[in-house]
Amino acid sequence: MGIRERLSGNEAAATAMKQINPDVVAAFPITPSTEIPQYFSSFVSNGLVDTEFVAVESEHSAMSACIGAEAAGARAMTATSSNGLSLMWEMIYIASSLRLPIVMSLVNRAVSGPLNIHNDHSDAMGVRDSGWIQLFSETNQEAYDNLLMAHRIAEHKDVLLPLMVCQDGFITSHAIETIELLEDDKVKEFVGTYKPEHYLLNDKEPIAVGPLDLQSYLFEHKKAQAEAMRNAKKVIKEVSEDFEKLTGRHYSFFEEYKMEDSEIVIVCMNSTAGTAKYTADRLREEGIKAGVLKVRMFRPFPAEEIAEALKGQKAVAVLDKADSVNGAGGALFEDVVSGMFVNNVNVPTVNYIYGIGGRDTTETEIRRVYSDLLEIANSGKADNPYRYLGLREGGEK
Amino acid sequence: MGIRERLSGNEAAATAMKQINPDVVAAFPITPSTEIPQYFSSFVSNGLVDTEFVAVESEHSAMSACIGAEAAGARAMTATSSNGLSLMWEMIYIASSLRLPIVMSLVNRAVSGPLNIHNDHSDAMGVRDSGWIQLFSETNQEAYDNLLMAHRIAEHKDVLLPLMVCQDGFITSHAIETIELLEDDKVKEFVGTYKPEHYLLNDKEPIAVGPLDLQSYLFEHKKAQAEAMRNAKKVIKEVSEDFEKLTGRHYSFFEEYKMEDSEIVIVCMNSTAGTAKYTADRLREEGIKAGVLKVRMFRPFPAEEIAEALKGQKAVAVLDKADSVNGAGGALFEDVVSGMFVNNVNVPTVNYIYGIGGRDTTETEIRRVYSDLLEIANSGKADNPYRYLGLREGGEK
Amino acid sequence: MGIRERLSGNEAAATAMKQINPDVVAAFPITPSTEIPQYFSSFVSNGLVDTEFVAVESEHSAMSACIGAEAAGARAMTATSSNGLSLMWEMIYIASSLRLPIVMSLVNRAVSGPLNIHNDHSDAMGVRDSGWIQLFSETNQEAYDNLLMAHRIAEHKDVLLPLMVCQDGFITSHAIETIELLEDDKVKEFVGTYKPEHYLLNDKEPIAVGPLDLQSYLFEHKKAQAEAMRNAKKVIKEVSEDFEKLTGRHYSFFEEYKMEDSEIVIVCMNSTAGTAKYTADRLREEGIKAGVLKVRMFRPFPAEEIAEALKGQKAVAVLDKADSVNGAGGALFEDVVSGMFVNNVNVPTVNYIYGIGGRDTTETEIRRVYSDLLEIANSGKADNPYRYLGLREGGEK
Amino acid sequence: MGIRERLSGNEAAATAMKQINPDVVAAFPITPSTEIPQYFSSFVSNGLVDTEFVAVESEHSAMSACIGAEAAGARAMTATSSNGLSLMWEMIYIASSLRLPIVMSLVNRAVSGPLNIHNDHSDAMGVRDSGWIQLFSETNQEAYDNLLMAHRIAEHKDVLLPLMVCQDGFITSHAIETIELLEDDKVKEFVGTYKPEHYLLNDKEPIAVGPLDLQSYLFEHKKAQAEAMRNAKKVIKEVSEDFEKLTGRHYSFFEEYKMEDSEIVIVCMNSTAGTAKYTADRLREEGIKAGVLKVRMFRPFPAEEIAEALKGQKAVAVLDKADSVNGAGGALFEDVVSGMFVNNVNVPTVNYIYGIGGRDTTETEIRRVYSDLLEIANSGKADNPYRYLGLREGGEK
Repeated sequence: MGIRERLSGNEAAATAMKQINPDVVAAFPITPSTEIPQYFSSFVSNGLVDTEFVAVESEHSAMSACIGAEAAGARAMTATSSNGLSLMWEMIYIASSLRLPIVMSLVNRAVSGPLNIHNDHSDAMGVRDSGWIQLFSETNQEAYDNLLMAHRIAEHKDVLLPLMVCQDGFITSHAIETIELLEDDKVKEFVGTYKPEHYLLNDKEPIAVGPLDLQSYLFEHKKAQAEAMRNAKKVIKEVSEDFEKLTGRHYSFFEEYKMEDSEIVIVCMNSTAGTAKYTADRLREEGIKAGVLKVRMFRPFPAEEIAEALKGQKAVAVLDKADSVNGAGGALFEDVVSGMFVNNVNVPTVNYIYGIGGRDTTETEIRRVYSDLLEIANSGKADNPYRYLGLREGGEK
Repeated sequence: MGIRERLSGNEAAATAMKQINPDVVAAFPITPSTEIPQYFSSFVSNGLVDTEFVAVESEHSAMSACIGAEAAGARAMTATSSNGLSLMWEMIYIASSLRLPIVMSLVNRAVSGPLNIHNDHSDAMGVRDSGWIQLFSETNQEAYDNLLMAHRIAEHKDVLLPLMVCQDGFITSHAIETIELLEDDKVKEFVGTYKPEHYLLNDKEPIAVGPLDLQSYLFEHKKAQAEAMRNAKKVIKEVSEDFEKLTGRHYSFFEEYKMEDSEIVIVCMNSTAGTAKYTADRLREEGIKAGVLKVRMFRPFPAEEIAEALKGQKAVAVLDKADSVNGAGGALFEDVVSGMFVNNVNVPTVNYIYGIGGRDTTETEIRRVYSDLLEIANSGKADNPYRYLGLREGGEK
Repeated sequence: MGIRERLSGNEAAATAMKQINPDVVAAFPITPSTEIPQYFSSFVSNGLVDTEFVAVESEHSAMSACIGAEAAGARAMTATSSNGLSLMWEMIYIASSLRLPIVMSLVNRAVSGPLNIHNDHSDAMGVRDSGWIQLFSETNQEAYDNLLMAHRIAEHKDVLLPLMVCQDGFITSHAIETIELLEDDKVKEFVGTYKPEHYLLNDKEPIAVGPLDLQSYLFEHKKAQAEAMRNAKKVIKEVSEDFEKLTGRHYSFFEEYKMEDSEIVIVCMNSTAGTAKYTADRLREEGIKAGVLKVRMFRPFPAEEIAEALKGQKAVAVLDKADSVNGAGGALFEDVVSGMFVNNVNVPTVNYIYGIGGRDTTETEIRRVYSDLLEIANSGKADNPYRYLGLREGGEK
Repeated sequence: MGIRERLSGNEAAATAMKQINPDVVAAFPITPSTEIPQYFSSFVSNGLVDTEFVAVESEHSAMSACIGAEAAGARAMTATSSNGLSLMWEMIYIASSLRLPIVMSLVNRAVSGPLNIHNDHSDAMGVRDSGWIQLFSETNQEAYDNLLMAHRIAEHKDVLLPLMVCQDGFITSHAIETIELLEDDKVKEFVGTYKPEHYLLNDKEPIAVGPLDLQSYLFEHKKAQAEAMRNAKKVIKEVSEDFEKLTGRHYSFFEEYKMEDSEIVIVCMNSTAGTAKYTADRLREEGIKAGVLKVRMFRPFPAEEIAEALKGQKAVAVLDKADSVNGAGGALFEDVVSGMFVNNVNVPTVNYIYGIGGRDTTETEIRRVYSDLLEIANSGKADNPYRYLGLREGGEK
């Protein structure tokens, strides 16, 4: 069952794209995602896929080409990072508003400035309101698996929204892990064929895409888009269950690691979850009831489900790998606690900004968080909710 | 005291810029902010200002030119809207990370797609984590006043962050109101001269701007940036007090309208506050204790202060003029309730997405919100926190 | 022998490209050559060729992509017209200086301004010193045949220069004629495989392409380029002879139509030659010894050979379909008479600027030229060498 | 009379621009002309001129901005070199066809590739048919003087064509000479005010600029443009005579140096003329009747006048500082000998390609040309008309 291969996260993403064999890939290279279009273009050159690879002249053009392709009726994919996503921004919103189920590999990297090529989540956080579904991936395996599920989710008639699969730049994108690949034919069958209901190349139904949409209609269209985002939860659930049947690998909106009896929990995303789980295991050997809640589905945000999962904990820490620079907490933190507020879940919860610009986060830092949580659990109070983790020379505030 | 003039919001902004007489203005026209650079360039042509007007070839270049100018040691301003801001996105983050106190007039307009030129706040909300200070303006007067205070805030040595003054496209930008202008010399004295400590044209201190900033330092620099954002609160307070002394016009982080004894409160921004206050007055005639909390300072977000102000209310509605399309509430709503969560303020609070793409919001809609709040206040329960206001044909969820 | 097909000039060019099956085609659409990449991209889509079609974002990029492809070791083709060529200009010179044998279909159209989409030769004339070989084509058949010979010429080791095949926009590009196609396998065999001696993808010989080339070397490199252009004459002769063996169709540097005994001769290029030959035939019925010299190989210019061919004529008219706007004669005229000067051929010769911006040139105009030539032949004098043909309201000077 | 200053050629050009004080300057920096906009922008900054300096984002934009400005009714100037001119090419033709009297300083540099920043005339030669008047300048003084005359010529109602003043990159652009400047007020009076008859900002006469101009009209418009170029001769003569009255400095279409009794003559342009005159003087000390014909007005080309001037010489050499790579002689050579052909002047004439990419041309090379001419004069034959001068290792052909 499955093929075991040693692949970097970028190779895993490119391999998923090869097996998906999309109609169009348009991409512009940027570290650390460069390898994805690079590997993929070699698949094109070697005839391993039928894809039209559009070698665009900027990221703005990359997303524009994907939009054109999807609007025409094709399945389109791209990959980018950081400032590549920044330059796409105008088109990112257009892609989702036009309800085009484009799939992107976003290899997370700090957005400039100053210039930094390493991992944090500022790129993904910056587009979290743009109407794209966002799935995060702890490992190379998850990056691969999320991509295999992506089109089934994005293209579902109740969804029709673009989707980005995130993974941590260099940490997983360039690190090699043994992962389990599906056979090509199984991928083909699982992903299925893209059959859009409305598309420009359908000569039986001439349509316009992207016309003027003034005061009388835009609100209703945005509402329909928001409805689609809510629908995505159901579809993500179904597709993940189908995927589990096929592969035995289980995916939910989020992973609850040792939370059956946990008292203190770290909420985080992507590769940090691995370190957190490892540290939780170590702490449990010391009798500390540590748990980890790893968010996989960040958009739509499962606010209610997470609130429910955190109910009864004694203390929670939300780790944000991007600073919202707003004086009021990171993006994940706000999502979590506003969900707790709405759902009347009262657990002392603190926020840690960490790992900015590729700063390493090791067992040491994670232990420190759990240690803080123990203190909060004991006191029942979280005096300073906005914290830093891993800052040099005690720069914490 | 002061000069009374009938000016549109764009004229008010351009007039403020004329009185400020910045060193550099770089802008690219986009509806509905086009008039600002248009008026301003006529001031340049007519010799009313000394400003270098840079007629750039895109918004990406507009922000790049402002960055270059500020880095060189000049005071730079710009204006844009909607997709103009989108195309700037890459440079928006760079401006704030380089700690350059550029001042922008953002005339809020719906971000495409589909194409809509009318007002909502999706442009401003999209950059709310970018490290810019954001001041919102109910009226032409406030747009003018906020701009006069902008440089004092942005350029303060404890802040050094770019700042955008928002107003509602067409609603205030194109509507003419009588406003009170300061005399030119008073503006000059109030705003003062820009004396940067470090700048490229200082031949006594050769510096590099925007170099590589890898794992070892970016986190600390981002923390310093976040610290500056927190400092901005103090500075905004001081500058607003100085401004009040000069003009008699009072500005806080937010305006609490009839909240001394209110039981139900609407939280909103920009021009909607006017309609809300008008409606609250009507309701008070009917014996209903309605209040309005108008957020002026959206970034940094005064989470704690707002939570404090809402403490004791019976029901609160937060109005978001942009849909975060995330299944978990609008941006202002999340900020407000996460602040309430952190500060242990428990008031039933609901979110309304409204006014998207220029949809009118009148007394009728505001009355409906207060009516909902009365119901919530009576029942003590807010069953459905995520709501729409003003959707046609009952599309509410 | 051969396949008879009814094809427009653009179809003929696209068909030649299909049979050549180049490695790379990079093109940006512009009237009237748009159909060439359009037809060709459908061949790519339908798998009729193996070509990598690069959908570039401007003509500057089209030529840049061809340069990159050829430098890498691939056979690259493109097509353009008029202002498309203008935007390529910087890269046009670079292509030839780097000695990259790119082949272009140039469908001649008037260069703006003002805007005109119809035929004249101002585009081709503007790049006549750029180091490209230029072959002109009277008919669809010649456009096809010239393209089949193009790579053999351009890629010859003694040449290594880019080559453009010109034909008249709309006049031949959009007019359908019955032409004789070669069989695919014969084309394949005739054109052969591109085996560059030096190329970037040769990992056995790492090379740099396009480095700095200052005072000490550029002159020698330009001289080598000029030498290559002179060598092209020999190669064009050989390839044309080989082509004649294969097809029976004869091509020289220029066609001498009824010049065995002619006394008055019109020198011209592209489709006008057809009208001139038709008119010469009519005049011969009237006893007038009219001839036509149709230039096929415009670059390198066969100055000596044309001078020799015109020796002994009584009067010559050179027709220029582009005005050099220099007060001293059209480009073809200067080439012809400077060649006559150098080779001591003294025949009264006049210049006509004609057909600008698509102005029709019919038997009437051609008869008028021959009539002028008769007069010159009789008087032995050509008083006014710089003339117009077909100007409305007697605008001749 | 006049002010003596030590200025480089670029400083001289910038000084002329300062005294002309045009309405608009739009330029993008490129070696070796960079200093011109650099100096000029400092004049703008220091308030020495009233000019609007448009800091464009490419040379294509520089010429576009000049076109817009002139069409609006303003006097516009620019400066560029080499590939800067290449990138402008599309707009260069549009400027002249729209009959906009823009004035450019072209500091001649070799056009790439390969990359070379030094002087030859390939940039100017490439646009010699574009409808621009081209004046060449031997010295810094001439570059200055030609610019002072430029607007009077270009803006004359019988001309209305753009004009470029050429000088040799580095050789004069960066070499300092003592030149004589006019007083500012005299320049102002001499150049006069620009009063266009038709312009976009004239609200009394709404016009369109640059509309579609199809088969029925473009020919007549191009003829009018050619007529204007012919008219330029008369106007250049008049303006040069006026300039002589003012300054005592005499300018004709070309300078005939010691040609009253010369037998062998070198025809050349720009700085080489200085070396040629110096060498002619040396040779005359040896009893050799050497002369120099320095072409100042290259477009319109004074074909007839030059032919007349060369009549009676025993041998002529035309020096081209750009290779037309056409197998048939350089641009200046073709212009000269086609003019001799048309005007029945029979003097043995040879062509030398020289100085490419900044190759030095000294007395040694010029002596060699005169020596060749002596030989031709003696034999009465010029066997090989196409020659090289200064090629290393006997690469002459």
